[in-house]
Parts: sequence; C-alpha cells; structure tokens
Amino acid sequence: MTIEEIMEKLKNSLPAKRYVHSLNVMETACALAKRYNQDLEKAALAGLLHDCARRYQSHELPGLCQKYGIAVDNISCLHPLLLHGPVGSFVAREEYQVTDEEVLSAIYCHTTGKENMSRLEKIVFIADFIEPGRDFDEVEGVRDIAFEDLDKALLKALDCVIFYVIKKGHLIHQDSIKARNYLLMKST
Amino acid sequence: MTIEEIMEKLKNSLPAKRYVHSLNVMETACALAKRYNQDLEKAALAGLLHDCARRYQSHELPGLCQKYGIAVDNISCLHPLLLHGPVGSFVAREEYQVTDEEVLSAIYCHTTGKENMSRLEKIVFIADFIEPGRDFDEVEGVRDIAFEDLDKALLKALDCVIFYVIKKGHLIHQDSIKARNYLLMKST
Repeated sequence: MTIEEIMEKLKNSLPAKRYVHSLNVMETACALAKRYNQDLEKAALAGLLHDCARRYQSHELPGLCQKYGIAVDNISCLHPLLLHGPVGSFVAREEYQVTDEEVLSAIYCHTTGKENMSRLEKIVFIADFIEPGRDFDEVEGVRDIAFEDLDKALLKALDCVIFYVIKKGHLIHQDSIKARNYLLMKST
Repeated sequence: MTIEEIMEKLKNSLPAKRYVHSLNVMETACALAKRYNQDLEKAALAGLLHDCARRYQSHELPGLCQKYGIAVDNISCLHPLLLHGPVGSFVAREEYQVTDEEVLSAIYCHTTGKENMSRLEKIVFIADFIEPGRDFDEVEGVRDIAFEDLDKALLKALDCVIFYVIKKGHLIHQDSIKARNYLLMKST
C-alpha cells in the first residue's frame, strides 16, 4: 500500500479527532527523524499508524491479543487500553501490509515505552507526547528539548507519564519504569 | 538479648540522630501494631533495628551483601544505600540474635517495600515514614490516615517515595512499583 492509500483507509477507520492526532504525530515524527538523521518514511509510517488499533473499544483489546498471540501482562489486564500499541502493530501488519519490524516495534511500544528503545521507538513515543494538538501542562517542557536531546526528552516524557498515572491512582506499567531506569543507567 | 541490651548496643553503634530516629520508629511501630492488633514485641524489635545497618557507609554495603549472600539488583548496585534494609536483616540476625523471620523480613524490605507485604512489614514501612522526627511536606497526608487505613497509608507513602525519586532523577526500584501495583490490584 502507498502512504496515501494507508491514509485513506485509516481516515475511514478512526474517529476524525483521532485521525487528526495521527497526522500530527506523523508530521512531528518526521520532523524529529529529520533532526536525528533517521529514515523519514519509517517515521511517517509508524507515526501515522501508531493508534490504528484505537478504532477498537478498550474491552475488545484483550480478545484481539488472544487472536494475535500477544501475552497480556497483569497491568494491561486491568488497564486494557494499554494494549492498543501491541494490537496496533498486528493490525498494521495484517491490514496495512506493514512488514518493517522497526516500524511495527515503534507502534507496539508507543504507550508504555520499554527498556533499550531504538531511535525510531523514541521518536514515535515523543511525537505522540508533543504533537501540536497536545496542550497539557507538562508538554512544553518536553517540546523545548525534543529537538535538542532525544534521551532527555524521553526521560521527561516518561516522568510525566508516571506522575500522571500516580495522580490518577492507576497501576504503573513495569515497562515504563524499565524504560526510564535504562535511560538513567545509560547516562551515568 | 533483651530489648534493653539491644537498645544499649544499637546506641553505641549508630550516630545519635539515627538512634533517636530508631527509637521514634519503634514507638510509632508499636502504636500502629496496637491499633491493628499486631504483636507489639515484634513491632518494637523491627522498628528499633530497621536501620541497624546504617552504621555502615553506603559504599560498604555491596561488599556486605556478598558476605551475606544477598543478591544485588541493578538498581541497588547504582544506589547502594538501598541495601541497608537487606544487610540490616542479616546484621539483626547475626549481631542482635533476632531469629523471628517476620521481624527480619520487615527490616529487609523497609526501604523499597515489596509485593504482598505482611501487616508487620507495612507497619515498619509506614512508621519509618511518619515517625515524629519526619517533617517533609507529604508526611502529614500519610500521618492523617495511618491509624485509619493501613493500606491507604502505605499507598500514599509509596506514591511519595516514587515522586521523590523521580524529582531527584534517581532510579525507581521495581519492588516499590510492585508494592504499589499489588495494593491497587488488591483493592479493585
């Protein structure tokens, strides 16, 4: 499929607001990829499709994990919306003919992060956090440094995610902690 | 050893300020044990000795872990002060003749917490957080509920610990996340 065909199909699949967010993440991911000398096409594809599984309701995601053979951890079991990343990577492969493992992996882990993220995974995670439609309090702090230091921006974004989860009284996903600890360990 | 002999030995082993803190934790742990119908002697012993390994410098703790056969995880390796709980439980056994496994376990995990904590472990963790000498901003919120709901107090204390660690830019110990997630999962 061409990127135009993917855009057309995605537009028909997602609510309008979610589709606009997807376009924004695509554009921001491309800008970050350009800044950090990464493959623009991969960044565009991963950014565009990162939320392709958001067409499903939260309660449908565990069943889709079963279908695709995705292991559901005990945190995601109680917060199934976290599964839209893993499910999205399989939807991207099956319905949008994406075969690039780097792109699929960036879609897979864009919600929680993970230990030892690739450049592309970091770019999609941060793009999702800072795209122009985002206006929560902490976004500016990440936006300010995203084009200066990718790892610092990722660390700040992960800190914000963990703060938010604590404030909401939700479970913290171990992969977010692993992502954060890995960054800190690498920088010491 | 009698509790008086333990107090005398501990007093000679720790800096004055740390010994006063230990007495405070002992008293607070006893008050909590009384409130929640737990064994007062165990609470006193665990509270009194929880910091017995603080007589060592941070850099000495990894070597003591090797001596006692304590596995050092990758977080504690970089923040060795976290090891004073595990090392303390072995010091309590070896030098203060403590044999009660519940007491030793409460000393072991009083810094990070852990999944599925016992009543005594919770009491010592919270007593360490709220003893009268503590005056950081968040302590009142935990003090207010410690005698009403042990699990809510523990959750709040863990949230504060995680917030603090993030603000300091330190690594987050997985056991603190597991302790918090376990409490939340149990309450849903």
